[in-house]
Amino acid sequence: MTALLYGLRAHIALLMKLATYKDGSRDGQLIVVSRDLRLAHYATGIASRLQQVLDDWGFLAPQLQDLYHLLNTGRAAHAFAFDPMQCMAPLPRAFQWAQGQAYLSHLALTQPQAEASRTEPMLRQGAGDSFAGACDEVVVPSAAMGMDFVAGWAAITGDVPMGSSAEQAQHSVRLLMLSHTIALRNLPDPASHVQSYPATAFSPVAVTVDELGDAWKAGRLHLPLHTSCNGRKVGLCEAGEGMDFSMGQLIAHLCKTRSLAAGCVVGSGAVSNAGTPTGRGKDKRMEWPRGCHSMAEKRAMEVLQNDAPSTPYLQFGDSVRSEMKGKDGQSIFGALDQTMVSPQGEGSAQ
Amino acid sequence: MTALLYGLRAHIALLMKLATYKDGSRDGQLIVVSRDLRLAHYATGIASRLQQVLDDWGFLAPQLQDLYHLLNTGRAAHAFAFDPMQCMAPLPRAFQWAQGQAYLSHLALTQPQAEASRTEPMLRQGAGDSFAGACDEVVVPSAAMGMDFVAGWAAITGDVPMGSSAEQAQHSVRLLMLSHTIALRNLPDPASHVQSYPATAFSPVAVTVDELGDAWKAGRLHLPLHTSCNGRKVGLCEAGEGMDFSMGQLIAHLCKTRSLAAGCVVGSGAVSNAGTPTGRGKDKRMEWPRGCHSMAEKRAMEVLQNDAPSTPYLQFGDSVRSEMKGKDGQSIFGALDQTMVSPQGEGSAQ
Repeated sequence: MTALLYGLRAHIALLMKLATYKDGSRDGQLIVVSRDLRLAHYATGIASRLQQVLDDWGFLAPQLQDLYHLLNTGRAAHAFAFDPMQCMAPLPRAFQWAQGQAYLSHLALTQPQAEASRTEPMLRQGAGDSFAGACDEVVVPSAAMGMDFVAGWAAITGDVPMGSSAEQAQHSVRLLMLSHTIALRNLPDPASHVQSYPATAFSPVAVTVDELGDAWKAGRLHLPLHTSCNGRKVGLCEAGEGMDFSMGQLIAHLCKTRSLAAGCVVGSGAVSNAGTPTGRGKDKRMEWPRGCHSMAEKRAMEVLQNDAPSTPYLQFGDSVRSEMKGKDGQSIFGALDQTMVSPQGEGSAQ
Repeated sequence: MTALLYGLRAHIALLMKLATYKDGSRDGQLIVVSRDLRLAHYATGIASRLQQVLDDWGFLAPQLQDLYHLLNTGRAAHAFAFDPMQCMAPLPRAFQWAQGQAYLSHLALTQPQAEASRTEPMLRQGAGDSFAGACDEVVVPSAAMGMDFVAGWAAITGDVPMGSSAEQAQHSVRLLMLSHTIALRNLPDPASHVQSYPATAFSPVAVTVDELGDAWKAGRLHLPLHTSCNGRKVGLCEAGEGMDFSMGQLIAHLCKTRSLAAGCVVGSGAVSNAGTPTGRGKDKRMEWPRGCHSMAEKRAMEVLQNDAPSTPYLQFGDSVRSEMKGKDGQSIFGALDQTMVSPQGEGSAQ
């Protein structure tokens, strides 16, 4: 009877924020986080790992929502202060991780040799064996590899049948997160990418699409992404308006010839807004007032403006921070805040 | 004390064969299979899923070996007849699946535009969210997509630290399996491959490298792979001699800029042996007496011999079977035996 009720309830709006706390294990401990990100509660008794919830969403998600409601109303029995530093990625390891290129203005700047107008989204598959936590340091063998980041957002899917339409695929989205993918731009590995995208981290918290209200529309996240480097703002692009392929289209592309099993993580790629020609100065040059969410894009802008890049790639000790705020000014996913360090600990603050 | 003993024993030879039985769940039930593939025993009490064993190999693997020994000597309490039809992939879903191209003669035939001599192995990452069982039917949306297979073998790794050498990486190999990857050759998706390699299946049984004795040498599997299509032999290539990059080299390439977590599946790509110029006929044409392990390779051979391919890609109802036998003639991994079917069931025998 309980199972039946939960099954029915799964079709209506589902509100919750989830995270995974470090506990020394590979999958961590699932926690429910309050809407304002101040309090948390272990999900013990419902599920210990997020993959379990994704595997049995219709039954478990409504139970987590009940706990979320208790937490938000100050009635959860064993709530504690939420600390993003203790977070693994919400899904610490995933059976599929596919990074899309949904913002064509990013592609046009960083890979101008690619076809100018694409009708199908481009995705590349990555390794999901160990995602980083939002505040984890990123260890890279050498700064000479050209350390860069790609700030974007990602969806965690449920099961998606082969051949689903973009609209059907969009309904499979269970949770959204922000993402940082580390890119090594100087590696001679453009075709397979197995070495050049070594690490991806996700925001402390994953949220259901219903949590976003109007900001989630047509498979797009209509809010600005804030990204800063060493405390200086570098990007404030609108994640909704410049997105040429919706999340539904990205997932539909992936499931054209195969089904996807619950727990696939699909990324938007670097959030990017197209530049505008300006009347300022003697020559009407292109400007990008909202900046960018990867150094490769910033360097490409500099080449267009000044014929040469002036921003170097990241060095050990440099940090990148990304966050997204709702219309009420509250952080939705918590902040990604990562520092690049060498295997010997150079750059580490710890 | 027990843990300590098992820890010590993990450094000596580890002998066992493992499989995963279908039970309606996404990860199935782990079983131990006897060396002759006749008997099996649930691993319940030690571990229910293979990923659990990989996550805690030093402690759990020796316990499974004890059960394997009891099974082989007829002393296992609840042994039952082993049925490969009931098998999921030994690891039904994996957090990383990277397919290599370790046999350059395959690359030279099927992608002659790629560099002729490569010093670094090529790998592409795929989705690990749902591997197929050895005898599962393969559902493809349309035969017009150009259905092909790639028969090879694969390793399941333990944890591999970033920057490991090929020799170190080779020691991380926990288990070996045979593999069939389905390739859709007519799809216009060569760059990202997210649609063109929709499904991979693995042999019923995964075995430790020590099970192979002398046949496992320098990260290579020195035995012939038998592949047939609709009952006709198409390939009998030596898996050892034509392998240009060892499994250790493939894994070392993957871990150059990141660590790999236990349970990564790394594939060899199509097993292939170089052709030989023959003196037969008027012109000394190339011949490949050992055949091939993908239709794309067979068609490339036909183009070289007769200027046009004569073998079509697979049709619904066509089947592919691959197996590897030890020097004693016994099947080591059990046979992969798959039939191509349409979403409407065309070609299905079931």
